[in-house]
Amino acid sequence: MTKWVYGFGDGSAEGRAEMRNLLGGKGAGLAEMSRLGLPVPPGFTITTEVCAHYYARGKSYPEGLAEEVRTGLLRLEKALGRRFGDAERPLLVSVRSGARVSMPGMMDTVLNLGLNEKAVEGLARQSGDPRFAYDSCRRFIQMYGEVVLGIEHHLFEEAIENLKLTTGRSLDTDLSARDWKAIVEAFQGIVQKTTGGPFPDDPERQLWGAIGAVFESWMNPRAVTYRRLHDIPADWGTAVTVQAMVFGNIGQDCATGVAFTRNPANGANEIYGEFLVNAQGEDVVAGLRTPQNLTIAGKKANGSHLPSMEEAMPQVFAELLRVRRTLEDHYRDMQDVEFTVERGKLWMLQTRTGKRTAAAALKIAVDLVDEGVIGREEAVRRIEPGSLDQLLHPTLDPKAKTTPLARGLPASPGAASGRIAFSADEAEALAARGEAVILVRVETSPEDIHGMHAARGILTARGGMTSHAAVVARGMGRPCVAGAGDLAIDYEAKTLRARNLVLKAGEIITIDGGTGEVMAGEVATIEPQLSGDFARLIEWADGIRRLKVRANAETPEDAAMARRFGAEGIGLARTEHMFFDPERVPAMREMIMAEDEAGRRAALKKLLPMQRADFAEIFRVMRGLPVTIRLLDPPLHEFLPKNRAEFAEMARQTGKEEAEIRRRAAELHEANPMLGHRGCRLGITYPEIYEMQAVAIFEAAVAVKGETREEITPEIMLPLIATRKEFDILKSIIDRIAAEVMEKSETKISYLVGTMIELPRAALLADEIAKSAAFFSFGTNDLTQTVYGLSRDDSASFLGIYQKLGIFAHDPFVSLDREGVGAIMRLAVERGRAVRPDLKLGICGEHGGDPASIRFCEELGLDYVSCSPFRVPIARLSGAQATLAEESRDV
Amino acid sequence: MTKWVYGFGDGSAEGRAEMRNLLGGKGAGLAEMSRLGLPVPPGFTITTEVCAHYYARGKSYPEGLAEEVRTGLLRLEKALGRRFGDAERPLLVSVRSGARVSMPGMMDTVLNLGLNEKAVEGLARQSGDPRFAYDSCRRFIQMYGEVVLGIEHHLFEEAIENLKLTTGRSLDTDLSARDWKAIVEAFQGIVQKTTGGPFPDDPERQLWGAIGAVFESWMNPRAVTYRRLHDIPADWGTAVTVQAMVFGNIGQDCATGVAFTRNPANGANEIYGEFLVNAQGEDVVAGLRTPQNLTIAGKKANGSHLPSMEEAMPQVFAELLRVRRTLEDHYRDMQDVEFTVERGKLWMLQTRTGKRTAAAALKIAVDLVDEGVIGREEAVRRIEPGSLDQLLHPTLDPKAKTTPLARGLPASPGAASGRIAFSADEAEALAARGEAVILVRVETSPEDIHGMHAARGILTARGGMTSHAAVVARGMGRPCVAGAGDLAIDYEAKTLRARNLVLKAGEIITIDGGTGEVMAGEVATIEPQLSGDFARLIEWADGIRRLKVRANAETPEDAAMARRFGAEGIGLARTEHMFFDPERVPAMREMIMAEDEAGRRAALKKLLPMQRADFAEIFRVMRGLPVTIRLLDPPLHEFLPKNRAEFAEMARQTGKEEAEIRRRAAELHEANPMLGHRGCRLGITYPEIYEMQAVAIFEAAVAVKGETREEITPEIMLPLIATRKEFDILKSIIDRIAAEVMEKSETKISYLVGTMIELPRAALLADEIAKSAAFFSFGTNDLTQTVYGLSRDDSASFLGIYQKLGIFAHDPFVSLDREGVGAIMRLAVERGRAVRPDLKLGICGEHGGDPASIRFCEELGLDYVSCSPFRVPIARLSGAQATLAEESRDV
Repeated sequence: MTKWVYGFGDGSAEGRAEMRNLLGGKGAGLAEMSRLGLPVPPGFTITTEVCAHYYARGKSYPEGLAEEVRTGLLRLEKALGRRFGDAERPLLVSVRSGARVSMPGMMDTVLNLGLNEKAVEGLARQSGDPRFAYDSCRRFIQMYGEVVLGIEHHLFEEAIENLKLTTGRSLDTDLSARDWKAIVEAFQGIVQKTTGGPFPDDPERQLWGAIGAVFESWMNPRAVTYRRLHDIPADWGTAVTVQAMVFGNIGQDCATGVAFTRNPANGANEIYGEFLVNAQGEDVVAGLRTPQNLTIAGKKANGSHLPSMEEAMPQVFAELLRVRRTLEDHYRDMQDVEFTVERGKLWMLQTRTGKRTAAAALKIAVDLVDEGVIGREEAVRRIEPGSLDQLLHPTLDPKAKTTPLARGLPASPGAASGRIAFSADEAEALAARGEAVILVRVETSPEDIHGMHAARGILTARGGMTSHAAVVARGMGRPCVAGAGDLAIDYEAKTLRARNLVLKAGEIITIDGGTGEVMAGEVATIEPQLSGDFARLIEWADGIRRLKVRANAETPEDAAMARRFGAEGIGLARTEHMFFDPERVPAMREMIMAEDEAGRRAALKKLLPMQRADFAEIFRVMRGLPVTIRLLDPPLHEFLPKNRAEFAEMARQTGKEEAEIRRRAAELHEANPMLGHRGCRLGITYPEIYEMQAVAIFEAAVAVKGETREEITPEIMLPLIATRKEFDILKSIIDRIAAEVMEKSETKISYLVGTMIELPRAALLADEIAKSAAFFSFGTNDLTQTVYGLSRDDSASFLGIYQKLGIFAHDPFVSLDREGVGAIMRLAVERGRAVRPDLKLGICGEHGGDPASIRFCEELGLDYVSCSPFRVPIARLSGAQATLAEESRDV
Repeated sequence: MTKWVYGFGDGSAEGRAEMRNLLGGKGAGLAEMSRLGLPVPPGFTITTEVCAHYYARGKSYPEGLAEEVRTGLLRLEKALGRRFGDAERPLLVSVRSGARVSMPGMMDTVLNLGLNEKAVEGLARQSGDPRFAYDSCRRFIQMYGEVVLGIEHHLFEEAIENLKLTTGRSLDTDLSARDWKAIVEAFQGIVQKTTGGPFPDDPERQLWGAIGAVFESWMNPRAVTYRRLHDIPADWGTAVTVQAMVFGNIGQDCATGVAFTRNPANGANEIYGEFLVNAQGEDVVAGLRTPQNLTIAGKKANGSHLPSMEEAMPQVFAELLRVRRTLEDHYRDMQDVEFTVERGKLWMLQTRTGKRTAAAALKIAVDLVDEGVIGREEAVRRIEPGSLDQLLHPTLDPKAKTTPLARGLPASPGAASGRIAFSADEAEALAARGEAVILVRVETSPEDIHGMHAARGILTARGGMTSHAAVVARGMGRPCVAGAGDLAIDYEAKTLRARNLVLKAGEIITIDGGTGEVMAGEVATIEPQLSGDFARLIEWADGIRRLKVRANAETPEDAAMARRFGAEGIGLARTEHMFFDPERVPAMREMIMAEDEAGRRAALKKLLPMQRADFAEIFRVMRGLPVTIRLLDPPLHEFLPKNRAEFAEMARQTGKEEAEIRRRAAELHEANPMLGHRGCRLGITYPEIYEMQAVAIFEAAVAVKGETREEITPEIMLPLIATRKEFDILKSIIDRIAAEVMEKSETKISYLVGTMIELPRAALLADEIAKSAAFFSFGTNDLTQTVYGLSRDDSASFLGIYQKLGIFAHDPFVSLDREGVGAIMRLAVERGRAVRPDLKLGICGEHGGDPASIRFCEELGLDYVSCSPFRVPIARLSGAQATLAEESRDV
């Protein structure tokens, strides 16, 4: 027979911490504390299975439940020597919800249950405080009325106001026991009037009403919404915990409080928390009184004048420290507890694993290892990799007051202040004068790269989490707020309008890329400080990790940064980023405007030395580590002017007629550039471009090998391959150039030629392509676009609705779509490795820095992930966690 | 031991017609004719295996070949009583190439081989014509010198010119036997000078030289190119046929000619051909003399004054008729033969299956069935489905003289003349006045539909075979020339410039959508006449065909046409085409401009009655046949204005500020509309649109069911589905609307809800989606775009190069890419049917009308193909051929 009710209290319990799914977090925590011998008011928990039964069977309770609840109550009455509704020693209980995971404030609670005409007198007598008793009683009726009977809040409030008006009193504390008694009567009248019946006097009836209300609250709209947002299945259900009331509000030797067993902000190994003397839990939440610190140290740190618990209630404080020790030893992690002190006695009401900042999480994990409480693997497992982002970028000073002017997407973490610049050139000019700059654009394009580089931060009015601005900013480690739709940017007038404020170019603005907030003026920021804990934990992770971590980088600065962050190579050097440089764009444009191959070759000749120097510098920086270079990828029109002024400028630079340039631009215009004349299609139609790039790569390799006497093995990557034939044609060009350069320089360079897998066709024909390609790198950005038929740049308009309706659990450009994109990747891995067992496999899309996606890459057995330099530490940690998860799956 | 040489002649042969792979087409044909007892000059064929050996073993011949050739020669000498190099009765031979399939003019031939100093005198003596003998000799030296010795053509020509200059003669016919003898000597001098040795005098050495030259010519550049273009593998190799020479040029009782056993133009059951008296085969090709007709009827039909063979050589003609009968009885198909008449004796030199027009092919096949020569299946198998296109559209009168002004892609077959209109509105206005119009646009967009409909033909300067213009024109059956890049269209000036000609709006132009040619002025056209043969053959095909054939149609006119062409339902009714109508676009725009759902609903309310009427009309036309309706697919911005004037117009119509309209257009602008906010994504974000469409469908079904008392089962199709959840959300809307309409009307309508499979993700998750969807229709246009990452509208710029390099064997938008797109379709079919065995499967992309793609659909086991109405007959025939091919594969 199924057991529906689990009792606890008095140093024993029928439940345990591991029964969280059955008893809810609260119920399991109370049971576990009870078993540990900690002071827990006795009670019992009705399981989540009852909730499931309730909803599955037309809101009815399972057979035997009533009996078990009755037994639980009797046990309570016996243990406490009290009785429900007793005029001398009445039993009062709280009725609380508790799901598997915490859903703070989402469901209903009833306190002080058990009060009726007799019991209130018993409570008055027992506490020696009739005012307290009647106040408790009216609180109970009000709470019960609202939660169980559905009576509107304001009706009760109005009754109190009325009494205050008639008696001429203004504060609750001014009201006497008699006043509260009158209010109890008034409340009973309200219940009678609105429900057509009297307030239930029988405590058992009260109890069943409250149990039902808690189950009902599982399906209230805010709980449903919360679950949807947090991916919590509806069928988990809630448990109901019925527990004897203890009172923190019957005298100066009473109190209520919360504590963390370590400092949740910085992780320091010290108890941390607050309490209120003579108060109930509600009062802490209400925030009407200033809470006191637990410790003297805490009091000092907060500049508080109120006595700490350490001073005011030393015995209780000592007891709390003992509880802390017990809980930490037991749970082997920092706990977040709630407690009440009733007449000098400490009662524990809740324990759960405490939330903490990223810095605290690191310190706690490392400390626990040093304390011998947990092992290194466990420490590595405990850190949420995404949270490391907080540690790598400046953040707004939490003490600074801010009023957001607008809000966009938190596209790239970190906070920055600077003068507004509305164009990349302006940004560069301002930065050259030593000014901090925020580049503000409707949206950015590859031509803005130099301005983005010069700026401290980037703000756009349009675009999503994976817009150009967002992707590039993350790659550069620049804070970015993207898609702040409320901003009206006027390039002509050089103004930015938001709410009723107009900001001009040159005025100062602050953005917080971690929250998406935009503030006028300067807001203080705090520089990140990487602790030794960080380095130690990441080192432990490296010892576990199987997947290699590379970085996407193409400038020597980025490469150097990637190396500092621990990248084990470059997985994607996008050669086109090198051409968007203002110094180089003219030669690129000359090539595009050329009438014939000879003209293109002449222009490419100008680019060759620059490109060669770039590669040489990267090879130097990455010495000893692999470097994957992707040949030119974007369509040529991306290098052409976008507006009137730029066309005129280009005409001046190239000496061509503006009309001719416009004609060429029109010729190159594409309806769907994403699916257009780009990637290896450029290499096929203009082989001289890829030839020049190959010459630059091999000559750079020869030069650096000459300097360092070390082997360099460039990995040359062809983008947008759809057929093996494309690959073969281009590989033969590269092989020929390689042979020529090697012969001329009398230097041998080993190299690999591989391909991006970013089109479904390439994945489907991976076996064919693997016959020729030495490595695959999954370009999951484009693969997501093509598998989904979803343009990254255009999806923002409906992505929100898609997520709200649960069509997309996550933005598929942020976290890899396992079922679709993942399925075709798996197919490519299997087919590719079947033909070439040593095929090197990596990923270089944005997903390469996303923990969930890295987990999937580990499942697929890829060799490496590649991500922007700032995400390298995150990938290192995620990789280790993936290895651990995969190992435990294998067992 | 492998046999390398196969002899023939004298009523017997070692080879047979079936040995075409070994003996080449020519060798097999000669052997077969010889076995049939037809007059064939004796000879022997060296097999294609020798060619393979030649290239596989460093250009060496297999052991035993020399011996077999010697034996062959001896047999020849014996049979003819002639000897190689004999001064009395010299043996002369031709040496010709012959591959499995005809490669006309690609490889080399040597005639008159065997002539040397002695033999030429023997030939003079024997023919009694020394001039002929020396002329033959110089021809041989010249041909051998060029083909075998690699001497440049002009050296020989100059020698003849020199002689003419010194002797004061100007024509070849003026030259005497002595002159030709002098030329023979001069030619020998040229050989000595350029090769450093004398011309080979020994006939056997000559023969081996010629054999080697023929094998070498298999790898000459033009042959290699030809094979690449025609998908002929290099390892097939060529055979070499050595055959006794017969001469058509030694008197008035000699002749040479070609004949078809039936009329290749119209299929009439009569011999058809030409001949030249006293001539060699070369002379016919050279075209210096006007050939004579074979028959009196032919002579009359061509208005010739020269005597026909029937008149001039009645015995020979009678013999030729006997040969014709024998060949047709034997080959059971129309033959194309070459012959020579030497002194009144007919010699057959070649036979092969003759090429014919589509009309002739039809008539011949049907006649052969009626004659009891072949069966119906064989007749169905013999017609190239694509060729039917010729029969369904007007064509240029072949007698009309045309000078193309420009050339584009033959995007939609048929020819048309009309006045130039540069906009859809102009085209409509002109057409309304009863004028024939050709719509001339840089490219077309959905807004031009009404103009395209009004026009007789469409001409664009940009776009490929699957551009908007091409696809829509084919759908409408309008001739279209697309992507005529040499045309400079100036909308402002309303002119069209090509070469040095400027044509103005209103001037007449002619296009030939079958060839891609554009002509100034009017060119006479011929209306298509569908013969009874056509109907009979297609009916036979229908008896064989398993795949159903539906049409893509959305107007009642198109639906009616589809039905006339034999469509068995509508596979794709694109509802958006209904909204582009100028009367409806305003309401559509009103919806797009609406601030909120209420505004959108108000606009949709205006569209509802029109949409309902459309559907009702289609249901009436298609009575008894299934109709698949696809809900709104294109992105909303397609309905907004494109240029200044249209914006102003829309502002007037809607009463909105132009700036506001522009703002909204900018808001809706997409970087990659193909991958943007379209398809079911519109239904998810604006459910009211799909609701309106569902209401229109069900109310129309109810109305027509009320009229006809017949069941109507609409098949509602959701576009661009990527996830099952999208499908489920939208299906629940449709189900709700269906229930509402049925309840209100008290009429039961059965219906299906299915999906397009046009995204790789949908194909990959077909098992999931099939749990909800009743049918799949493969949208292979979009599937090709996404699987390949290739924009249909933008691929023209590099598709040519891709085809030239052999990366694409075919345009993947015209003929389905089996390996990539096909592979993912197969996956979808398997996964879908695994979950829902009765899943209805179809295809509605452009490929649904392509014979090779239909073959693949049969392999996949789809239920139907759907294509534009004009391609329905092609699909009916292709479907039957696919069934036959699949059946023979199963055996």
